[in-house]
Amino acid sequence: MTDKFLEQLRQIIDQQYILTADHDKEPYLTDWRKRYTGKALAIVLPRTSSEIAKIVHLCASNNICIVPQGGHTGFCGGATPDQSGNQIVLNLKRMNSILQIDEANQTITLEAGCILQNIQEAAAAKGFLFPLSLGAEGSCMIGGNLATNAGGTNVLRYGNTRDLCLGLEVVTAKGEIWNGLKGLRKDNTGYDLRDLFVGSEGTLGIITAAVMKLYPLPISQWTTLVAVDDVRSTIALLNLFQKRATSLLTGFEMMTNESLVLTHKHFPQMGNPLKGNPPYTVLIELSDHESEAHVRQLLEDILQDAFESELISDAVIASNLSQANAFWHMREHITLAQAEEGANLKHDITIPLSALDDFMRDTDALIRAKYPGVRIINFGHLGDGNLHYNIAAPQGVAPKEFNRLNEKPIHELVYAQVERFRGSISAEHGVGQLKLEGLRAHKGEVAHELMKSVKRALDPQNLLNPHKVVSI
Amino acid sequence: MTDKFLEQLRQIIDQQYILTADHDKEPYLTDWRKRYTGKALAIVLPRTSSEIAKIVHLCASNNICIVPQGGHTGFCGGATPDQSGNQIVLNLKRMNSILQIDEANQTITLEAGCILQNIQEAAAAKGFLFPLSLGAEGSCMIGGNLATNAGGTNVLRYGNTRDLCLGLEVVTAKGEIWNGLKGLRKDNTGYDLRDLFVGSEGTLGIITAAVMKLYPLPISQWTTLVAVDDVRSTIALLNLFQKRATSLLTGFEMMTNESLVLTHKHFPQMGNPLKGNPPYTVLIELSDHESEAHVRQLLEDILQDAFESELISDAVIASNLSQANAFWHMREHITLAQAEEGANLKHDITIPLSALDDFMRDTDALIRAKYPGVRIINFGHLGDGNLHYNIAAPQGVAPKEFNRLNEKPIHELVYAQVERFRGSISAEHGVGQLKLEGLRAHKGEVAHELMKSVKRALDPQNLLNPHKVVSI
Repeated sequence: MTDKFLEQLRQIIDQQYILTADHDKEPYLTDWRKRYTGKALAIVLPRTSSEIAKIVHLCASNNICIVPQGGHTGFCGGATPDQSGNQIVLNLKRMNSILQIDEANQTITLEAGCILQNIQEAAAAKGFLFPLSLGAEGSCMIGGNLATNAGGTNVLRYGNTRDLCLGLEVVTAKGEIWNGLKGLRKDNTGYDLRDLFVGSEGTLGIITAAVMKLYPLPISQWTTLVAVDDVRSTIALLNLFQKRATSLLTGFEMMTNESLVLTHKHFPQMGNPLKGNPPYTVLIELSDHESEAHVRQLLEDILQDAFESELISDAVIASNLSQANAFWHMREHITLAQAEEGANLKHDITIPLSALDDFMRDTDALIRAKYPGVRIINFGHLGDGNLHYNIAAPQGVAPKEFNRLNEKPIHELVYAQVERFRGSISAEHGVGQLKLEGLRAHKGEVAHELMKSVKRALDPQNLLNPHKVVSI
Repeated sequence: MTDKFLEQLRQIIDQQYILTADHDKEPYLTDWRKRYTGKALAIVLPRTSSEIAKIVHLCASNNICIVPQGGHTGFCGGATPDQSGNQIVLNLKRMNSILQIDEANQTITLEAGCILQNIQEAAAAKGFLFPLSLGAEGSCMIGGNLATNAGGTNVLRYGNTRDLCLGLEVVTAKGEIWNGLKGLRKDNTGYDLRDLFVGSEGTLGIITAAVMKLYPLPISQWTTLVAVDDVRSTIALLNLFQKRATSLLTGFEMMTNESLVLTHKHFPQMGNPLKGNPPYTVLIELSDHESEAHVRQLLEDILQDAFESELISDAVIASNLSQANAFWHMREHITLAQAEEGANLKHDITIPLSALDDFMRDTDALIRAKYPGVRIINFGHLGDGNLHYNIAAPQGVAPKEFNRLNEKPIHELVYAQVERFRGSISAEHGVGQLKLEGLRAHKGEVAHELMKSVKRALDPQNLLNPHKVVSI
């Protein structure tokens, strides 16, 4: 049967784009964090949505499931096939054309396989900002960003990927092509199919193209690091910047002292320029469309205010672009420093800002009481309430062994706290296979059943990325 | 059967909140524009979502359909019952509590029956802006705003109602309560049920409460009217303001000369302060969080630039709040002036900004050639590409008779043009019953079938607001 299927597949798409040899398939089968390695009948590399529509038809009649894949940089195994060897991986990297930049409408139309960084650069070349920005931008693809509703560092000002999307082209589980590639800011003609596909991780349809919003490029950015004593002051500082700088505020990242000490240990050139190891270091970025002088003055005025209200005890403003980049690198290297230190237990969570202080106090205390010596590497996009609340083994304890013993109870403890404070167990990384099991309890029975109804309605044969997000 | 049903209903909800006498029911049965008058078994006025859940159960077992209703100010008959007399109207006006204002999190939690203006005022009392603003704000309710994804004058800066919503409570067609009342900016835990209910016009579930975003109140607003020669310059002017003022730009409304002449005729105190009846008058509003001096200077700089680039030929800056209000009143009175002139044919459409000039030239020419003397009252939220493209009978021709003869072909002509330019036939007013028939052709077969699948999945009994948006 397999041979017959592959033979039929070759009638749709040239055989050089159907990878079946083990060494050809291998790069597509393991997820970014190396938690999952699957098998696949073939890796298929289509060039057009019509080819994909035909492939879906063929798979449907052969009962072969499809795992859509972009840059394969997700953190939850959402684009990694299962162990059966009966799935195909449909990787969209050949669909990488920028179809149109519409300057008056401030939109860009793209195929799903465009790499995020290439989109940013194409937009910038026309004087526009494509605001989505995240660690994997050199290899992740917009189709995957849409499928997972990716977040990143610019959400505070520009929203998640969902908020940047105006229109989609999608191949449905029936093998039909929905052309919803419209660049409209207002369109109230029926159900919001676009947002149903966005964030559905390839389980409801295959996103093949999109119309995304563009914004004018800012002309001046100023970055500062400030020292804060506690979470309550950090939130008050955020609220102050929101009130005074409003949409000029494009970055507000919190880093605990423990996070920065670890970063400094593994990257000695990345010392915190703030003196005295403050409990919390906050990176703040303002972006302006008026003038360098204007934004610099505004930043200084707000910092002055923050000093006088005793919200901050120290501040360093980047004096040039390379220092600003150094501040961001320090923030971004926390993740790498953790990896150097050995595996750790990650939690990508959101907590309402008003509850963040209580959540952190309470959860830190519970963890430290139960696991003495443990290191809490807590940092994140505080402006969005998004924490990367990660737990590393105590100094001198082997990380793998510690995680093997404690992974389950620590996850349970943290997620129970998230429920208590009405947060989210996946802020920006999605569900994939990693969080499939916990999802029912987290969403509640009613929402989970609604999700299953939607999946059954749009993909009754369970053809698209089965056992990711929801199992039916 | 009806008596038995009403008897059971009285066990759920006190009989004073079940209206069955004709004169009690009458105010709930005719839509805002007086296009539709329906019948109802009863008007039911619940106080809690638990009551609603019980009512849904009872209706399901009696096969009685439910028409959810808020302020009943929609333009497409979406909240008006049908002619059968077998539906109940579920009006949510008693569910009008503001449940919480969370200042640190910048969110407000509301029951669905809260009147929009009350929400704006409650937010302002705490120093926050609730940005949703539209003509009916004194009587429309947030549940209806959510159900129709209402637009209004602030969409340019703050988005549609959908963009302001973080969480929902919904009673499903199964009579279950989904508690999704979370105030999180990032939450990637499965399908976007929230956005599926938003804009579904009560056909997939009954929205009973919501968590909405708040923004800091601006401290200074400046409003100006400018004279523009053509649409191309109007778009260039918009792009200039987007680049220079970015998110300080909170209003960009275009009015044709014909619209303002009509307004002046019926409201003589509302003359256009710009001299010489320019072809296009644009109302521009900037809102600032820094200082009055700052925004005033920015506005003057941009206008100076626009003069030098010959995008505008005249400008009047409102010298005080009352003059600014007068500018806005002139804009808002176009609709009332049209009503004074007699019924007209309305089109609430969006066109991509890059195609707007061609659309207007082309469509105006087709209309004027086919219907000599006709008046095209064209105005709208240009910043969003949203036109209210309305056609009035020639001077001296009876509007009703003109409309009776020409309504269908004129709608067909305009909507065909909308398709040609890849626009939307309903920018902000929704579908309801008014645009039900045209929707399949507009959306295309694939999207329409997807919508039907979703409706069948979430409301298999077709209990909630049947024959609105989609018929199954």
